[in-house]
Parts: sequence; structure tokens; C-alpha cells
Amino acid sequence: MSMKRSKNVPYRFYLSAEEMPKVWYNLRADMKEQPDPMLNPATLQPVTADDLAPVFCEELVKQELDSKTRYFEIPAAIQEFYRIYRPSPLIRAYNLEKALDTPAKIYYKFEGNNTSGSHKLNSAVAQVYYAKEQGLAGLTTETGAGQWGTALAEACAYFKLPLTVYMVKCSYEQKPFRRSVMHTFGAEVIPSPSTTTQAGRAILEKDPETGGSLGCAISEAVEKAVTTPGYRYVLGSVLNQVLLHQSIIGLEAKKAMEILDEYPDLIIGCAGGGSNLGGLIAPFMQDKLLGKASPRIIAVEPASCPSFTRGRYVYDFCDTGKITPLARMYTLGCQFVPSPNHAGGLRYHGMSPILSKLYHDGYMEAVAVEQTKVFEAAVFFAKHETILPAPESAHAIRTAIDEALKCKEAGEAKTILFGLTGTGYFDMTAYEAYLNGTMTDYIPTDEDLEKAFAQLPELSRV
Amino acid sequence: MSMKRSKNVPYRFYLSAEEMPKVWYNLRADMKEQPDPMLNPATLQPVTADDLAPVFCEELVKQELDSKTRYFEIPAAIQEFYRIYRPSPLIRAYNLEKALDTPAKIYYKFEGNNTSGSHKLNSAVAQVYYAKEQGLAGLTTETGAGQWGTALAEACAYFKLPLTVYMVKCSYEQKPFRRSVMHTFGAEVIPSPSTTTQAGRAILEKDPETGGSLGCAISEAVEKAVTTPGYRYVLGSVLNQVLLHQSIIGLEAKKAMEILDEYPDLIIGCAGGGSNLGGLIAPFMQDKLLGKASPRIIAVEPASCPSFTRGRYVYDFCDTGKITPLARMYTLGCQFVPSPNHAGGLRYHGMSPILSKLYHDGYMEAVAVEQTKVFEAAVFFAKHETILPAPESAHAIRTAIDEALKCKEAGEAKTILFGLTGTGYFDMTAYEAYLNGTMTDYIPTDEDLEKAFAQLPELSRV
Repeated sequence: MSMKRSKNVPYRFYLSAEEMPKVWYNLRADMKEQPDPMLNPATLQPVTADDLAPVFCEELVKQELDSKTRYFEIPAAIQEFYRIYRPSPLIRAYNLEKALDTPAKIYYKFEGNNTSGSHKLNSAVAQVYYAKEQGLAGLTTETGAGQWGTALAEACAYFKLPLTVYMVKCSYEQKPFRRSVMHTFGAEVIPSPSTTTQAGRAILEKDPETGGSLGCAISEAVEKAVTTPGYRYVLGSVLNQVLLHQSIIGLEAKKAMEILDEYPDLIIGCAGGGSNLGGLIAPFMQDKLLGKASPRIIAVEPASCPSFTRGRYVYDFCDTGKITPLARMYTLGCQFVPSPNHAGGLRYHGMSPILSKLYHDGYMEAVAVEQTKVFEAAVFFAKHETILPAPESAHAIRTAIDEALKCKEAGEAKTILFGLTGTGYFDMTAYEAYLNGTMTDYIPTDEDLEKAFAQLPELSRV
Repeated sequence: MSMKRSKNVPYRFYLSAEEMPKVWYNLRADMKEQPDPMLNPATLQPVTADDLAPVFCEELVKQELDSKTRYFEIPAAIQEFYRIYRPSPLIRAYNLEKALDTPAKIYYKFEGNNTSGSHKLNSAVAQVYYAKEQGLAGLTTETGAGQWGTALAEACAYFKLPLTVYMVKCSYEQKPFRRSVMHTFGAEVIPSPSTTTQAGRAILEKDPETGGSLGCAISEAVEKAVTTPGYRYVLGSVLNQVLLHQSIIGLEAKKAMEILDEYPDLIIGCAGGGSNLGGLIAPFMQDKLLGKASPRIIAVEPASCPSFTRGRYVYDFCDTGKITPLARMYTLGCQFVPSPNHAGGLRYHGMSPILSKLYHDGYMEAVAVEQTKVFEAAVFFAKHETILPAPESAHAIRTAIDEALKCKEAGEAKTILFGLTGTGYFDMTAYEAYLNGTMTDYIPTDEDLEKAFAQLPELSRV
């Protein structure tokens, strides 16, 4: 297909402008069985474009519901924005390989090389572009660890669209600098739960001291969008449209590996709502669905929020306030909130319906890892690869290291690709806790989970 | 020379591995008149290699004193490290140009794309490599805003060399996350002034509540190095060796512009001790010294610490404790400490002797800008170019914008190149102050400066 550019694979490999993907890839087009449709919670019928129109902008509704179109052309204005910070580098982890003394070849796709510090910008720019095209007056969203809010603030500044961000209150207080970055880009940032919405007021009434949750912030952002003229809501993960936009990660990675004459035996991504994982694996999963290749694909999630490994594959609400459609996904129940000692993101109760279906059908594996092990891997990685990873990304690093060590034991020179979703500059409190030895692990008990499952919607209770 | 790669100049242009510079360029080799030599403060004679050997490692002493060798080959191990994070991109500021509606073409060389977040890593890796080669037991240094300490911690982790960082106390307290990044990379970080050195104890005795200064932290780091067996001291700016290493910035930028068929009419860099400015302009200044081209070169400094524009070109100590050699440079006097309301770096009392000489001889200009104007430019730049700049870098942005607006007025399509030295993730307190309207400016009065000049060494008093 493509020519090998150089005999030595460089540390950082960048595609040329000509080699950049011009389309997004829609995984659903190649799935033999489709994910179950989202349901309107009032009628329990599959949601229609009309149901979604008050919440999302039109083009995004089309993308959300389209399981047929294999490739979506990336609009010129989005390609233009991508060129500002993409391609992201594909990096050969020579130093990590040497430090582990493994015969495995380790590659990672690094998405932290932009001001938002993560892959979230890939979908943010797309969603803001379509909103602007539709002539909307503004957008609302929620953010937990803050990457999504930052990315969206950045894209909204570029396209000159007002933005209101509901930020999970404990993050708002623990990460004042994240908030300041969003301010700098011109966004309004409100700690959630707040008194600006019914959903927020209801939660505050029950528990005035709550630190908030992602599910609650979603409820507030959706309510604010549907009650403000010309506003719509945008979401940074879980949705089909987001996985579509994030396929740019995997398409670039696959193209780069082709040029380098490589193909991964193993693809590893961290999984919260699934945006990075779904994007990274997309074209490789296509090969698997079409029987062209059979790489192992591993989702890595926190042991404190184990939706794949301990959740149920049932219909559930996407938010705490139970105002969103129902999605069939691996879920811990929409009232589940991870233990407060859990650092960083990957704290969503559910998982992308597309990825849930693929996992359910055996196309991928999942592992859950504890955070002290994750930070151990993060610090080791930082010292050898000179990049300070986000805690989320470090979940993938942990498993990549574990797999590389298995290769060492077995004497196998496997090719590993993992997603390094972002940088950890705003997570130093957690790093400091790890270095001081005060970081703890927490694994929910079966009883904790049963309590959360009891809150599932009626149609999903066993 | 080189072929134009593509008709459209991309946003981000990266050199290929083959196009990367293999040498550093020593500006002194082409200067008609040399900077005055450093003097031993005891004898007032030019310092010798023997004088410097207890403080700096051997290879670096050679580089410091060598004004003849035009090109230094970059050792293979350093080239290897550079390949982990270099080339840095040369970015065409299309969005900024559009927002300013200027006919000027604006390019910037972005050095923030590494975990240390700045250009400082270019010299850190070189200095740590030579120290390791010499078999040293460890290194000491000082850091103000924290970029240098972070870069050095990163390089020391890579080469497995212990590091002690004296961090200016007010930064230590205001930037706990900077400190945590250094911890993560394994460095020991001590707030300065401290009780671990005589210099620190003397300053604490006079003023127990002091927030410290860069000059004082240098005194402590040097003392610690010369009193600890097998230790040496390293410095991130000012020195000839640092400018040599930083020439990688300018060499890459010039090569990239050649490939794009461009040459700057105007080169703009922020100036604290001069490491970025000296590196960025090096090969362009060579053209100027050899009469091959005559770009305008502008140093931008904070109005609150105006060494070029209001300092004296005399011999002065490099530190507050008066234990270093004397250097002839533009200086505000080694006791000068910028007003506490000054945010970010660029707070050193002196300036690189090489740059001081070139400025004195009319090869470059200098302007001083106030920080509210600097942050105004920073926020404008962030919104349009999607990169959150360090306050230091934003000094260059301010002047680049001012010059681009002059081009607009005059209808001139000049080509501007400026140095974007780093990112501002650890400077959000200052951004927040600007956004809240609580940021103030401060310009030292003539009386303030006279008071500082009165502290100059005897041979420099007029």
C-alpha cells in the first residue's frame, strides 16, 4: 500500500497533510448485529430524530441514528481545525521497551498534544461546528475531570459560540486551574449541582453537601439546553456520534502503522464512556468484523468504576436525573457514583452502546485495574518516556506494561498499540498522593453494586 | 537548497528525521567583537577552566569558554533524546493573521510540546548528559517559575542522575503542582532561601519572611554543588553554553522556513536571561553578522524587570550572594528583585553576555511591555490559535501582534517569526487575575533602579 519511509522507525511519527484521513469511520456499518436502539423513556419506543431534536443539533442527530453510512466525509472547516493540532504523533516507546527489557514492540498514539490536553477536542470541534452551522445561540455541557469542558471551550472560542459548562462540584473545587483554562477560552463554568436547574435544586435539597456526579451534571446541562431558546446540549463520550468523530484517532494510527509496515497484535485503551477506546480501535475492529485480521482488543477500566467487568448489559438512563433516553449498555446503574478516593476521570456509570454490544458479542476483552497500580505505571512511564500521562491514560499504560511483561516471560515479540489519551498537568494532587503513599484503592463490594442495580429502570430489573 | 514540500504551507510544519540539525551553532565564532570575558571576583582576572571546574562539569566549561568553534556536533545520545520530543513544530498563525486582518505572515516556533512545557529541555538534556558522562554523583540547580527545574528533573530521570532543585520560595508556594511534577520525576525540591546553605541562612536571618529570588536560589544551588562531593551546578539560561544548546531552536526554524521558501523580516523573542531568544535568533544573527541578510531582531522584556531597556552594560555578579564570577552584561544590579505583582518568569536581574554585546553593538532592538498588555495578547492568542501560552512567551506574542498591526496600517506583507517558548498550564492564577481585572502593572521608578545600581560591584559603579 504505502512505502516505508525510513528503515528506522522514529520515536514520533507524523502523517503528512496528504496522508491525513478525510473521513470518519462508522463502526456500526460493519457490525453484523446492531446495538439495541435508544428508547424514549416515556413510550419505551426507539427514539426518533424528532425526539432528539430539542436536545441535539440536527446533523448530530443524523449521525447518532445512522447505522448504515460507513464513511462520513469530514467537513472542510473541521479538517481545517484538525490541521491546527493534528496529526497526533504515533510514538514508538523505545525507552519503555528497554526499561521493561521486553521483546514486545510498543506503540502509543498520543492525543495530549493540544491545549485541551486530551483527545476530547476531536469531537468537540465537530459538535461545535455543526451547532454553528445550524445557527444555534449557544451550547451546554457537563464536565467531570475537566478535559471535555476544556476541549469544548477551546472549540467554542474558535467558532465564537457561547458555552455553559456544568462542572462536577468536587472537581470544580479540586481543580481551580482547569476552571481557569475554560474561563480563559470564554466559557461560563457552574459547579454542579447548582441552583440554576430543577435537577440541581432537587439534588441539593436531598444532599446539600454533595460533591456532585457526572450523571447529575448531565441532567443539569440537558435541562438548561432544552429550556434556553436556541441552545442545545453536547456530550463528550458514550454517544455513537462521538465514537464516529473519535475514529480519527484509529484511522491515523492505522495509516501510520501501515506506512511503518506494522500491525498491532494487541490494542489497549482506557474506557470511561468509551470515546477514546471506540475511536482508537475503530478501523482495527473493522478488520476483525470483516475477518481480515484478529487483533486482541482490551478495554481497561478502574476497579472503582467497573462497568464492563461487573456491570449489567441492560437498558439504563444516561444521567442521574432520569431525563435522557434509555440506552442498552453495560452499566452500574445511573445512581452509581465511584468512591471519592477515585482520582481522575473514567467515573461514568455506563459505557458506549456500540462498545457494549461488541464486548457482549466477544469482540473485545476488558480488565479492571486499581489506581495505585495505575499511578505506579504512570510514574514509571513518565520517567522513561518523558510524558506525564493523565490518570485516565495511565490505565492503558498499566495494562500495556503488564502485557509487555507477559511477552518477556513468553519470549514473544508482539506488537502492542495503546492509546495515550492525554496529559496529567491538572492531576498533580493525585500524583502527589501516590508519591506520598496516601493514595488508597477502593473496590465496590457486591452489596454496593446490588444497591446501585436496584435503581435500574423497571424494564431492566431482574 | 531544499524543495518546497507542498504549495500550501501547513499550520504545523515538522522537519523529517533527516532534516534535523546534527550540530549546535556557536554565535561567538562569527562575532567581530567578542563579549567581555567573565572575571574571577577575587582576582578580577578572566576566569579559567580551572576556576570553573569545581562548579560546572568539564565539557560544559569547554563550551563556555570556546569562542572559536563554530559548530559543535550534538552527541548521539543527545540527538537520541531530542528525537523523543523534537523537531518542535514551526506553526503558521493563519488564525491570528485572520483575526488581526493583517497582510503580515506570522510564524512561530512552538517549544511547549514536551512535558516540561518549554524550550528549557533542550539545554537540560545536554547538561545532564555531560554530567553523566563525567561520572558525577548528582546536580543542583535553581528554578523560578519552574520550567527549568521541571526540564532538568525530566532529563535527570532519563539519565538516572540525582537532582536537587532550589525553588524560589514564593513560586514553591504558589505553584505546588510544578513542584509535584518535579517530584514525580524524582527530584528533591527545596524552597529557597532555605537553612541548607550558608547563603540561605544569611538571607533568612536578614529577612525571615522573604519570598526569595532567583539570584538567591542560584547562590544556594552553587554553594550546595561545591560543598557536596561529586556534585556540580547547572544553569538554564544566561550562560554561553546554554545559548549554544538552544541554537537547536533557530536552526530548526531556519531549515523549516527554507523548505517553505520563507525568510523572516522580523524575529521576536521574549528575554529573561536570554536562553530562548539567543537560541531562536542564532542562525539568523549569523546571516546578519556575515552580511548575508538583515532581519530586524527584537527582544521583548517585562517592564517590571527591564534589563535591556533600562539596565547598565557593566560587570555584575550572576547571583545575589555574590559568589559567582562577574559577567559583563545588561543588568539591573544583582540585588534587584521584580515587584511581587509580576507574574511568570523573565525576572532575572541580568542578561546573557552574548546578547548583551550584540544589543550593545546595535545588532538587535529591545522593547519592554507591561503585563496586563501581555495577558491581553495571551488570551487573544489562545482563543485564535488554540494554544494557551506561558506568560513569558506571551511577551513575544504581544510584540508580534503590535508589529503585525503596524504592517496592517502600512499595508506591508512582512514575514514575522516569533518564539513561543512554552505553555501556561501552571500559570492559571495569573490568568485568573487578568480575567478578574485584579492584575496590576508595575514599572520600577528611576529611584528604584538607582538603589539597585548602587549595589553593583565596585568596578562597575559610576
